[in-house]
Amino acid sequence: MKNKISMAVIRRLPKYYRYLKEMIDKGVDRTSSRELSEIIGFSASQIRQDFNNFGEFGQQGYGYNVKALHGEIVKIIGLDKEYNMIVIGCGNLARALINYGFGDVGFTIQALFDNDPAKIGTEFHGVEILDTNILETYLSKNDIDTAILCVPGKNAQGIADRLMVCGLKSIWNFSPVDLRAPEEVTVENVHLVDSLMTITYLINK
Amino acid sequence: MKNKISMAVIRRLPKYYRYLKEMIDKGVDRTSSRELSEIIGFSASQIRQDFNNFGEFGQQGYGYNVKALHGEIVKIIGLDKEYNMIVIGCGNLARALINYGFGDVGFTIQALFDNDPAKIGTEFHGVEILDTNILETYLSKNDIDTAILCVPGKNAQGIADRLMVCGLKSIWNFSPVDLRAPEEVTVENVHLVDSLMTITYLINK
Repeated sequence: MKNKISMAVIRRLPKYYRYLKEMIDKGVDRTSSRELSEIIGFSASQIRQDFNNFGEFGQQGYGYNVKALHGEIVKIIGLDKEYNMIVIGCGNLARALINYGFGDVGFTIQALFDNDPAKIGTEFHGVEILDTNILETYLSKNDIDTAILCVPGKNAQGIADRLMVCGLKSIWNFSPVDLRAPEEVTVENVHLVDSLMTITYLINK
Repeated sequence: MKNKISMAVIRRLPKYYRYLKEMIDKGVDRTSSRELSEIIGFSASQIRQDFNNFGEFGQQGYGYNVKALHGEIVKIIGLDKEYNMIVIGCGNLARALINYGFGDVGFTIQALFDNDPAKIGTEFHGVEILDTNILETYLSKNDIDTAILCVPGKNAQGIADRLMVCGLKSIWNFSPVDLRAPEEVTVENVHLVDSLMTITYLINK
C-alpha cells in the first residue's frame, strides 16, 4: 500500500465496502468502474484512481472480481480484525450506540464509564458501568483501541486528555466540541447538532 | 447573500457558531480572523473568505464584533426560526436522538412513526407513535420541514420516496444506506458505521 492516502479517499472506502457487499448479496460476480460509478455516484475515473491507491485490483477491459475487490477493501479498512472499545458517559446516546451495534465492524465494548453514583456498578447489555475515576487504572491493565466519548461538552477535553495520557490512539467523539489532540491520535467527530444545522441552512436557501 | 455557497463553507458555519457562542459566554467582545484561526484551526484568510460570502462583517484593522458576527451566523444558518420534524423508525437510536435534544436548533418533534403494533399508540417523551401506514395522511394535514429516518437499511429508500412524494424537502438520514433523491431535496447522512470504519483504517495505518 502506498503511504499518503488522502482523507477524502479514506472516507469513500466504507461506501465501496457497502455497495460491493450489496452486489455480493445479489450474486453479482464481476463489475466495472463504469458500473460502480452509476451505482455509487462517483466518476469512473475517480473510482479507478481510488482503487489504484491500494494496488492493482482490476484488469483492463475485464473489470473487477466483486468478491476479491470486496475482500481487499475489508483488509484495507481493517474489518478483518477485532477491536476493543470503551464508552465514557452512559447517557441515552451511548446506550443507543451500544444497542445499535456496529454492523460488520468487529468492535467489542469492554467497559462503560460514568461518574454518576446511581449508574456505577450497574450493568448495561451485560457490560458493567465503572467509575470514571478509575479510567487510568483500567487502561493500564486493559488493551483498548478506541474510546467512544459521549460526555457533556464541558467535560470532553478533560476526559480526552486523560485518555491520551494513557496512550489511547483513537477517539470516536460524540461530545459537541472539537477536541485538541496531537496528529498521531485519531479523533473522529460525529457532531449531530452541526449536521442538523446544515439542514436548517439548506431549508432556508 | 450571494447565491453559490459551497457545501464546504456551509459545513464550517456550525463551527463558527459554536466558537463564537463560547466567546460570548466568556465575555469576549471583539475578535479577529487571526484569533479565530488560532482557536478554530482554519487559516485566517479562509475565515475572512468564508465571512465575505455572506456580506461585510468586519472592519479592516478593527476586527469583528463577536455578538454581531454570532447574530449574523445565527440568521445565516437559520437558527432564528422554528422547524417541525417527524421521526420515522422508533428504535433505540431515534429514542436517543429525541432524548438528546438538538441544542440551540429550534426543532420540535411533532410526531413519531413506527410499523410495530406494540409501539403504535404509545407515547415517547409526550409525543404519540403513529402507524407508518398513515404517513401520507399525516403529511397532507401537517406542515413538516424535516424527517429523521431511523429505519433499517432495506426500508429506507421506500420510506424516503414516500416522504418526497408528499413534498418533504429534507431528510436527516441515520439509516445505513445512501438515499436516491432529486437535487432539490436535502439529504443529510449520518452514517455511523462509515464513521467507525474510518477509525479502524486509521488505527491500522
